[in-house]
Amino acid sequence: MKLENDLLKIAKQAKIASVYLSNVSTDLKNKVLFEAAKGLKENTNLILKANKLDIALSKKAKQTEAFIERLYLNKQRIEKMSDDLRALTILTDPVGEINNMSKRPNGLMIGKMSVPLGVIGIIYESRPNVTSDCAGLCLKSGNAVILRGGKESINSNIAIYNVLSKSFILCGFPHGCINLIESTDRRAVENLLGLSEYIDLIIPRGGESLIRMVVEKSKIPVIKHYKGNCHIYVDEYADLSMAEKITFNAKVQRPATCNAIESLLVHKQIAAKFLPLVFKHLQKAGVEIRGCKETVKLYPGIKIVSEQDYATEYLDLILSVRIVKNLSQAIEHITLYGTKHSEAIITENFSNAMKFFKSVDAACVYLNASTRFTDGNEFGLGAEIGISTDKLHARGPMGLKELTTYKYVVIGNGQIRS
Amino acid sequence: MKLENDLLKIAKQAKIASVYLSNVSTDLKNKVLFEAAKGLKENTNLILKANKLDIALSKKAKQTEAFIERLYLNKQRIEKMSDDLRALTILTDPVGEINNMSKRPNGLMIGKMSVPLGVIGIIYESRPNVTSDCAGLCLKSGNAVILRGGKESINSNIAIYNVLSKSFILCGFPHGCINLIESTDRRAVENLLGLSEYIDLIIPRGGESLIRMVVEKSKIPVIKHYKGNCHIYVDEYADLSMAEKITFNAKVQRPATCNAIESLLVHKQIAAKFLPLVFKHLQKAGVEIRGCKETVKLYPGIKIVSEQDYATEYLDLILSVRIVKNLSQAIEHITLYGTKHSEAIITENFSNAMKFFKSVDAACVYLNASTRFTDGNEFGLGAEIGISTDKLHARGPMGLKELTTYKYVVIGNGQIRS
Repeated sequence: MKLENDLLKIAKQAKIASVYLSNVSTDLKNKVLFEAAKGLKENTNLILKANKLDIALSKKAKQTEAFIERLYLNKQRIEKMSDDLRALTILTDPVGEINNMSKRPNGLMIGKMSVPLGVIGIIYESRPNVTSDCAGLCLKSGNAVILRGGKESINSNIAIYNVLSKSFILCGFPHGCINLIESTDRRAVENLLGLSEYIDLIIPRGGESLIRMVVEKSKIPVIKHYKGNCHIYVDEYADLSMAEKITFNAKVQRPATCNAIESLLVHKQIAAKFLPLVFKHLQKAGVEIRGCKETVKLYPGIKIVSEQDYATEYLDLILSVRIVKNLSQAIEHITLYGTKHSEAIITENFSNAMKFFKSVDAACVYLNASTRFTDGNEFGLGAEIGISTDKLHARGPMGLKELTTYKYVVIGNGQIRS
Repeated sequence: MKLENDLLKIAKQAKIASVYLSNVSTDLKNKVLFEAAKGLKENTNLILKANKLDIALSKKAKQTEAFIERLYLNKQRIEKMSDDLRALTILTDPVGEINNMSKRPNGLMIGKMSVPLGVIGIIYESRPNVTSDCAGLCLKSGNAVILRGGKESINSNIAIYNVLSKSFILCGFPHGCINLIESTDRRAVENLLGLSEYIDLIIPRGGESLIRMVVEKSKIPVIKHYKGNCHIYVDEYADLSMAEKITFNAKVQRPATCNAIESLLVHKQIAAKFLPLVFKHLQKAGVEIRGCKETVKLYPGIKIVSEQDYATEYLDLILSVRIVKNLSQAIEHITLYGTKHSEAIITENFSNAMKFFKSVDAACVYLNASTRFTDGNEFGLGAEIGISTDKLHARGPMGLKELTTYKYVVIGNGQIRS
């Protein structure tokens, strides 16, 4: 009961603070960001001490090296967190614009005003920088935030949170604008996900199992991204040299990211000409190729691809290859195996490009460019709180604007309905 | 198992059809709408015969008169359904626009293309016109639709559905663009709400209990509207004559609608002057007034209002009245009891109006106009599929545009990420 009451108190406090936040000027929000950025630098030693404790406990618990690497902080990483907060101050405040103001025949003026969502819950794993990144984005977009990080980084998170929290108080903000759940009890997440009366949106950040758990339990809307099973389709009208460079980049440049490709679809007319080109470079870079029957006919040494392969996000130097008979078959393949993330066509044919754009159901569709560009910074959003593969509210990289909603403002001079 | 398999088949078929629909020209969609409008008129007798059967069964089941009135069709009502389908043909197609196309430093062109959501499920009660209204809106916005009406109107719905379905086939559309669940088994809804792999959005239309059930069971995003507990706040700087006319209109003109007001909040400085004005007219129109202590002091005859009253959507000629000490108290009241629907301030003071606009969390905020205007037609959307009091994706009246989402289109000439 104590846990439940504590969470309810936090959520109610956040809801009240969200009304305050929706009225705050851009200058004042930026002031908190500057203070917080300064505070992180000034308190580097304190944060590093807390982080050492987390690291020691994780080593004792025999966590993997990759896990500890994600958890690890040093002076440079704290400086980066500080710089990222400061960078938010130069971004345009997404709140308060009134768009599409139109005049109705009866004289009513009706427009859409951009407003904060209200209270946003962030559920994440072990990276402590998420604490300051998300707090900064929520503040700049006028939202109250409730943070719930992984239990392995709890000491680091508390240290960072204390610095951020002080900056809010210093600038005269009420309690409740920024909240950290300090309980590492597993039931805290489940409890939090039921408080739909107070929390407007949940953003889970982490592995697929965390996200599935959140979606399963949540009574609050969730915006999420399970995985990126991305494809490149090389059309019969592709510039093959361009197609080769883009395929190589999308597979090899950073294979562990969600916007790297996992499968290559090639039109049968150009397969015999294109595949030798691209395979040579890929194999040189250590990429394992798994091909369909037709591909194996051309390259007898290659491992045969399975249905399971087509559905897998390798996040590794492995590539599925399928020769398709036409654009429609490529679209069908993506419809079946795609995860609504990023999909590319390489072609010089306008009609084929437009058909691909319209028919492929994904957050980002590309013509003649690498899927690796799906990213808030690359899209010019400045910073991102995550990537959405959902279809409601926001798709693709989510920046400050995606943390707002709108309300209709209706301005009259005495209009009544007859 | 048969039911489950049937539903799965319908959902899969709809998903496949949705790819076709996302590529269809506006002219062709309008052709279906014209055919369907013609079909409804030509088959009036057939539809009325089915409706007679539903009415007879409902009378036998001792349904209320209000219930049977909602279910009832006649020649005029079918003509109205037909006219509403034809009216959709003149609305702008919301699909395929590319907005905010911008050029990145590396030459990539990035824009947002408006696209259909995919497959929309509509779960509704006894009004048979919902069948054709929703089918028309989904078609025009390029979405496949799965319709699930109340069991009491099943014969009417099947008759209407058959006419609509024929129009799709006549214009060369594949099966699956429009679907009606003919099983009246209660488990069908529950089953449907689990098919998140195939259905992109659920819109429930009906009473609060239907909607709560849908939200409880759904694994698919739901956009909804529980109720409208709407307020008017008469500020100390209000034009009192205007405030009186607006209050009367918002309470009396059609009290059973969700955008009628249930509570009146009055600044203490003008209460003694304003209340006699408005009470006289309201009481003459048969409105029962329930007042706070301060109101009762001024009008000893009036019934005292309860906490429960403040939280009630009367949908009737009853009005709660509270005298507040300032704008902040009015905002607090609305924050506590409002249902994020429509809220109005009557004032000539600009700062107060802006504070109200920013602080009140509602789909529609009004200055100096009646809340009764919250409506797709009044807002100039042409037609509406419902009103959303949610905060994600769409708020307020939802028209064709709100049945679409966007995808990022990224156009390059060989860009790779470094």
